[in-house]
Amino acid sequence: MKISDIGERELVRRIKSLCNNGRGEDIIEGIGDDCAAYTPTPGFLQVVTIDALVEKSHFHFDYFPPKLLGRKAISVNLSDIAAMGAIPKYALVSLQLPKDFSLADIESLYEGMMEAASFYKLSIVGGNLTSSALFSIHISMIGEVAKDRLVSRGGGRVGDAIYVTGTIGDASAGHEIVSSKKTSAEYPFLRGVYLNPSAKGIEGKLLADNYIASAMIDLSDGLASDLRQITEASGVGALIKEGLLPPSEELRKYASETGKNILDYQLYGGEDYQLLFTVPAAKEGELKKMIKGGLIEATKIGKIVKGEGVSLLGKDGKLVPLPNSGFSHF
Amino acid sequence: MKISDIGERELVRRIKSLCNNGRGEDIIEGIGDDCAAYTPTPGFLQVVTIDALVEKSHFHFDYFPPKLLGRKAISVNLSDIAAMGAIPKYALVSLQLPKDFSLADIESLYEGMMEAASFYKLSIVGGNLTSSALFSIHISMIGEVAKDRLVSRGGGRVGDAIYVTGTIGDASAGHEIVSSKKTSAEYPFLRGVYLNPSAKGIEGKLLADNYIASAMIDLSDGLASDLRQITEASGVGALIKEGLLPPSEELRKYASETGKNILDYQLYGGEDYQLLFTVPAAKEGELKKMIKGGLIEATKIGKIVKGEGVSLLGKDGKLVPLPNSGFSHF
Repeated sequence: MKISDIGERELVRRIKSLCNNGRGEDIIEGIGDDCAAYTPTPGFLQVVTIDALVEKSHFHFDYFPPKLLGRKAISVNLSDIAAMGAIPKYALVSLQLPKDFSLADIESLYEGMMEAASFYKLSIVGGNLTSSALFSIHISMIGEVAKDRLVSRGGGRVGDAIYVTGTIGDASAGHEIVSSKKTSAEYPFLRGVYLNPSAKGIEGKLLADNYIASAMIDLSDGLASDLRQITEASGVGALIKEGLLPPSEELRKYASETGKNILDYQLYGGEDYQLLFTVPAAKEGELKKMIKGGLIEATKIGKIVKGEGVSLLGKDGKLVPLPNSGFSHF
Repeated sequence: MKISDIGERELVRRIKSLCNNGRGEDIIEGIGDDCAAYTPTPGFLQVVTIDALVEKSHFHFDYFPPKLLGRKAISVNLSDIAAMGAIPKYALVSLQLPKDFSLADIESLYEGMMEAASFYKLSIVGGNLTSSALFSIHISMIGEVAKDRLVSRGGGRVGDAIYVTGTIGDASAGHEIVSSKKTSAEYPFLRGVYLNPSAKGIEGKLLADNYIASAMIDLSDGLASDLRQITEASGVGALIKEGLLPPSEELRKYASETGKNILDYQLYGGEDYQLLFTVPAAKEGELKKMIKGGLIEATKIGKIVKGEGVSLLGKDGKLVPLPNSGFSHF
């Protein structure tokens, strides 16, 4: 059944139901008024972000199932909330929908959103629908964080170590693989990182609550670009070492099989949604204990230095400044 | 100059500058981090909404100047905040931009947004850019309201009077006029209501602060549809009188010249962004004094009754139930 068959009122009714009407214990008005209304936690700061996934710009439906798209649309926003050390609370979803979009696909989309939301007890409290030739989903998300635990991009200081969670470059390789229509048996991990990224919400809160991260950002545009955001906001430079950048086994294999340079994925490949953060020397021991204890998976990749921009010390011993690439979230 | 000529980084730099970097006295982080961060006012509820204007679905650039589009995109969200009795505080702007969009048009768009924002001291604290074939603007807005002054759609009670601010049906006539390319000398008021609506922020707050409105909604989808939202949320019916619906002089003239039924604009024409509200009998005297004193322009159009749905008592003395039309904001 197409959404044009059931009409807007019925579609909204089903969406409300899929979102549990946006109910939650601190929510005064959920879905169904001009605005949602909620009681903020006393003493906490509110944080807020907006992000979009646009058909033909970010993805194509021939390789992106609607359920995973819903998960990802929520996860990319969760990732921004995590990078502030905050907890996600409420989301609003604005959709542009082609008239021939199926009801089943809308339901899958919202099921995916609710799956990603439920782990964090995030509520979808409102939204908007517009018919349009191309599909897009714009999500705004609100979170909260204790006043002294907010982590910005501007706290990096000379001498701080630079760490990254997980492995990097996987999502951009995964994107290449799913969009080139290879059989789905190949590179399940790389595909999964691209199609079904999980935000590092636990890690972000752990680093913020224990005052370990002096600056933090999520890896959405690629290491070179995102690290530059930290250096610019902090008024410092960064030196990272090629030999320290953590690749996954599959990325190593994929780059070797295709003859491509693994560094291109690691430096310029976006959408990994790992956390990149700086750590003062006095806090590094505590972080190392957490890593050893299995509380967080993170790798040191370099350090904050005087100056500006991001430089890479290659395996060949040469130091090269990295070019400034784009970003779209601000 | 096209936006593709200056690159994303420079574009974001200019947008930040146009938005005054999202600064404000209660804002901890403005534009330029993963999230914006702010301190909510203690004891207040937060309200939040999202809305979109999409090229070719809602408007065409051949009649909609970018500066007015920016104003309107902010105003339609201000209107939702006003309908809760709340004060607008922060906005996030997610844009889909065609590659050949001009830098001058982007600047006009943001200038228009900032004009609409400045009256309310609203801050634009973040955003997102995606290149796309069609332009769209999705805005999420956050406001706040004292706990006991929030006005929902669900507070209408049998016997309450139904009021509307200003005149209604003007925007849909204005839309017809601007999109049919008549000379701009004709019907300046109707054009203005469509192209440059002003949210009724002062009126919304006045009605909420003095506990005059028992239920309230902004007129975005048309009187019949929006009043039905109040009746459904309140579990009541509504009776309105054709003879009481306030038309503007220009709408009367336009309907007469074109031979169209003025009721079609007044009942089913959306985008007026007036406030529709219900008033308990005990509060009507106070409202009438405010109207007489020039504090608010509002007209009584009917009353809340037992039952369900919206009925219209025509000038011919016949009572007709109004059909259920669509809506897209939830």
